[in-house]
Amino acid sequence: MKITLAQLNYHIGNFDMNLRLMSDAISQAHSDKSDLIIFGELSTTGYPPRDFLEFSDFIDRSDQVLDQLRALSTDIGIIVGAPSRNPKIEGKDLFNSAYFFYGGETLRVHHKTLLPTYDIFDEYRYFEPSYDFDLVEFKGKKIALTVCEDIWNIGNENPLYPICPLDEMLPLGPDFIINISASPFSVNHAEARKQVVRDNVVRYQIPMIYVNHVGAQTEILFDGGSLVAGAKGNIYKELPYFEEAIETIDLDDLLIADTEAPQIDDNLREMHDAVVMGVRDYFGKLGFSQAILGLSGGIDSAVTAVIAARALGGENVRCILMPSQFSSDHSVSDAEQLAKNLNMPYDIIPIANIYKAFDEALTPAFVGTEFNVTEENIQARIRGVLNMALSNKFGNILLNTSNKSEMAVGYGTLYGDLCGGLSVIGDIYKTDVYRLAEYINKDGVVIPTNTITKPPSAELRPNQKDSDSLPDYAILDEILYEYIENKKGPKEIIAMGHEEALVRRILRLVNINEFKRYQTAPTLRVSSKSFGVGRRLPIVAKYLS
Amino acid sequence: MKITLAQLNYHIGNFDMNLRLMSDAISQAHSDKSDLIIFGELSTTGYPPRDFLEFSDFIDRSDQVLDQLRALSTDIGIIVGAPSRNPKIEGKDLFNSAYFFYGGETLRVHHKTLLPTYDIFDEYRYFEPSYDFDLVEFKGKKIALTVCEDIWNIGNENPLYPICPLDEMLPLGPDFIINISASPFSVNHAEARKQVVRDNVVRYQIPMIYVNHVGAQTEILFDGGSLVAGAKGNIYKELPYFEEAIETIDLDDLLIADTEAPQIDDNLREMHDAVVMGVRDYFGKLGFSQAILGLSGGIDSAVTAVIAARALGGENVRCILMPSQFSSDHSVSDAEQLAKNLNMPYDIIPIANIYKAFDEALTPAFVGTEFNVTEENIQARIRGVLNMALSNKFGNILLNTSNKSEMAVGYGTLYGDLCGGLSVIGDIYKTDVYRLAEYINKDGVVIPTNTITKPPSAELRPNQKDSDSLPDYAILDEILYEYIENKKGPKEIIAMGHEEALVRRILRLVNINEFKRYQTAPTLRVSSKSFGVGRRLPIVAKYLS
Repeated sequence: MKITLAQLNYHIGNFDMNLRLMSDAISQAHSDKSDLIIFGELSTTGYPPRDFLEFSDFIDRSDQVLDQLRALSTDIGIIVGAPSRNPKIEGKDLFNSAYFFYGGETLRVHHKTLLPTYDIFDEYRYFEPSYDFDLVEFKGKKIALTVCEDIWNIGNENPLYPICPLDEMLPLGPDFIINISASPFSVNHAEARKQVVRDNVVRYQIPMIYVNHVGAQTEILFDGGSLVAGAKGNIYKELPYFEEAIETIDLDDLLIADTEAPQIDDNLREMHDAVVMGVRDYFGKLGFSQAILGLSGGIDSAVTAVIAARALGGENVRCILMPSQFSSDHSVSDAEQLAKNLNMPYDIIPIANIYKAFDEALTPAFVGTEFNVTEENIQARIRGVLNMALSNKFGNILLNTSNKSEMAVGYGTLYGDLCGGLSVIGDIYKTDVYRLAEYINKDGVVIPTNTITKPPSAELRPNQKDSDSLPDYAILDEILYEYIENKKGPKEIIAMGHEEALVRRILRLVNINEFKRYQTAPTLRVSSKSFGVGRRLPIVAKYLS
Repeated sequence: MKITLAQLNYHIGNFDMNLRLMSDAISQAHSDKSDLIIFGELSTTGYPPRDFLEFSDFIDRSDQVLDQLRALSTDIGIIVGAPSRNPKIEGKDLFNSAYFFYGGETLRVHHKTLLPTYDIFDEYRYFEPSYDFDLVEFKGKKIALTVCEDIWNIGNENPLYPICPLDEMLPLGPDFIINISASPFSVNHAEARKQVVRDNVVRYQIPMIYVNHVGAQTEILFDGGSLVAGAKGNIYKELPYFEEAIETIDLDDLLIADTEAPQIDDNLREMHDAVVMGVRDYFGKLGFSQAILGLSGGIDSAVTAVIAARALGGENVRCILMPSQFSSDHSVSDAEQLAKNLNMPYDIIPIANIYKAFDEALTPAFVGTEFNVTEENIQARIRGVLNMALSNKFGNILLNTSNKSEMAVGYGTLYGDLCGGLSVIGDIYKTDVYRLAEYINKDGVVIPTNTITKPPSAELRPNQKDSDSLPDYAILDEILYEYIENKKGPKEIIAMGHEEALVRRILRLVNINEFKRYQTAPTLRVSSKSFGVGRRLPIVAKYLS
């Protein structure tokens, strides 16, 4: 039996496009003389469709795609993920299902059992879990059909679910396992995924074919890396990361093979490629081709600009340099050099006169007050208005250039430098932004060396440095990582050797700045705990604050 | 047996305050010679604690409050909601529990079965459902202890859950039911709540005591309205809306009573009182006392100002009037009149010179372009910068004045009039904003009549009217309501008699403006489907767009 893995870049709610993508893949499978083609989880709708699933009209449109695919199954088996309606009145109205079409008929509809409801996942919001565990018979083989999370409740010290679907299916004697997934990228996740697939095939002693999505849906990045694993725990084949791929394998070969062919993981390269894909798809799926961003001469906007240029082409990334009286000379020269290196058009718009107009207008109201953070914020907000003016006038999308460390502690101005339609590096700690800059420069200087080596500064008052108000980024990032990613409390972080007053101050800053993060752009997610939809906190809370 | 209902205004994560509130209520119960006091769901932590529940340190602090309460239970029973740790390694790590303390001991810990995971609720994100259904015996009575949603899977044509916990408990012979809740306000919800409680007592033929939260947690408003219902389906007692209340009843009286004493509901009054409480608690819980807002002379900012003045006192609401060359004369005079009526301090800051400075700075980049929405947005954003400058300088919180109709169709400027820490009327359709204005003026003119009667306009270009680009608000709001609240698709809305092109245009506007709503302030929730945490949609989706 020949089986085709279709690792595709779906677009949420774009039913016509998703159908076209799948039809094209079916054509290719036909050329490969394939018997069976496998698409990803919820591939008719794209993942995650979120509350669109609550619209009956949305489900109807998915059903229409299924009708078209069923009609294409006359001489090829098709496995496709889609929502299906729960026929019982009790429970949620939908299942998260894998449809198996063949001969123009529905051979089986298998429903997902384990519904991830954590971090960015909200599946129990929409779906009823299913506890039916039949196999599908196809061309003399028995297949255990599973959906994403169904294979993940294995090998954990603290399993999230009380049951393991494949434990129920194994006694029925499957020849191999198919898993259709929408499993998003984060650094280290590809390794975890390979490990889970290995754990499953080793435990059940049958091969597995695992098909993932690729491409970005707003902040959620799918890296692909679809897998074929042999019963001995060997990764027989792995599809590439961050690109679409359609590959056909021979089941007979798989059943006897013990060869290993996994990709070598490199976290920094994957982080880089992930955000480049994130920018490309955000623009592509919204129908935009050009970006704009403020270039300060600092490392955050420099790295953001490089990523944007690699995603969209340098000529499609317009840079605005907006010096003030507090800007250093090198802020403009470093930014200009970067723009030239990447062939990005740029404008220089000094903000002094605008600042003066605000200052005069506010003089009556501000009488008797001193220069403080208010005036710093006005400068940042003038730049926000200018960026947005160019974005509106020329139909570009403004990119937010904040990093995760400053988003965490609120070191940024709401409606100022926090403006933008997409946060590109908002899930990357400052110390990793430096690593990324070195990675970008590995084959020659793209980002000017001075941008990387000078001490970071917001340049909003004379001689300002980040280190005036923040600890060393190496220390800050360690504390933030323990709190945000590892969910450690103050006692545990202090016990690791960090200074108590500093830990309490940092955790307080993170918590009292939730109001800023609530109003900032969606952030390309590259870590296991990104700000945004995967991290949900109440603003008025009084905890560690 | 005397039983005390404690309807309290908890503060998420403020363990000291929550303990103090509960201790004070226990003192009052002692004065009332009460045998048992009942607090709300998750009252140690406040509701909803959201991802703080993932921090072990947070659960430890809740446990410390429980220890204190247990120690106070020597001669009074205490029922209190709190998270509890799941002793099994399989499944989620927590239960959502009702602790029953008496004699300084834990008499029972009952866990919630039905975990609401829809709209603003995310309980399966954190909690494992429990299927243990014992009763608690206390002073000769058998009590069916339930937590919030556990009583709601009744009387629905399309029940959300396959089981009904009280069906399991009834065979054990309970004398009465206790339900501890955190059931938020929305218009009509108080009536629904009374109906559910009636449905339960009628079905099970035993009384029920239902204790709710009161107060606001960011956008989520708890209206109180705790209930005591007799076995005959009578509402024996209802606690007030929108204020704390501690009341003691006699169980013997309840067991025989058939009297009715529910509050009369008035949707407009409740909507008004809800947002007043929402503003008061947002400020109070964040430790702020003063607000600032831009007053345009229009109805949205006028209604917002009245609500803020009623919540905080007029003297604590600073108004900024920011006329431009396109502002009508009445925009300033109407706004001034309102400020005087409410005793609100105000500043007038014309924006013409600042606009001129932006215009000059942008001239080189904008050469050859025409005045369009870009220049309109610059005006709105200048006002945003000025509002935020005063907010920063004087430590006030800026209130957002957008209504739900304009939030829906994107008729507002991101980082301009969409600025603000809290959206006060962002869940109130424009037609309801008018009703609210009439309600506010019912005992005398507070909002100048001209503000109510003049045609709505953003005044961002000469002679602009909302009706230039939007349909009549009566029609717009009907279409929006069917789409947003009722989740109807285009076919269904068109079938109701609305013009096809208009329906498609409106739904498209709603969907393509998701990126703006993503970045706007939390919105006080008064409807069954408010923008914000209860409505989750992907930005890059292509559906009806």
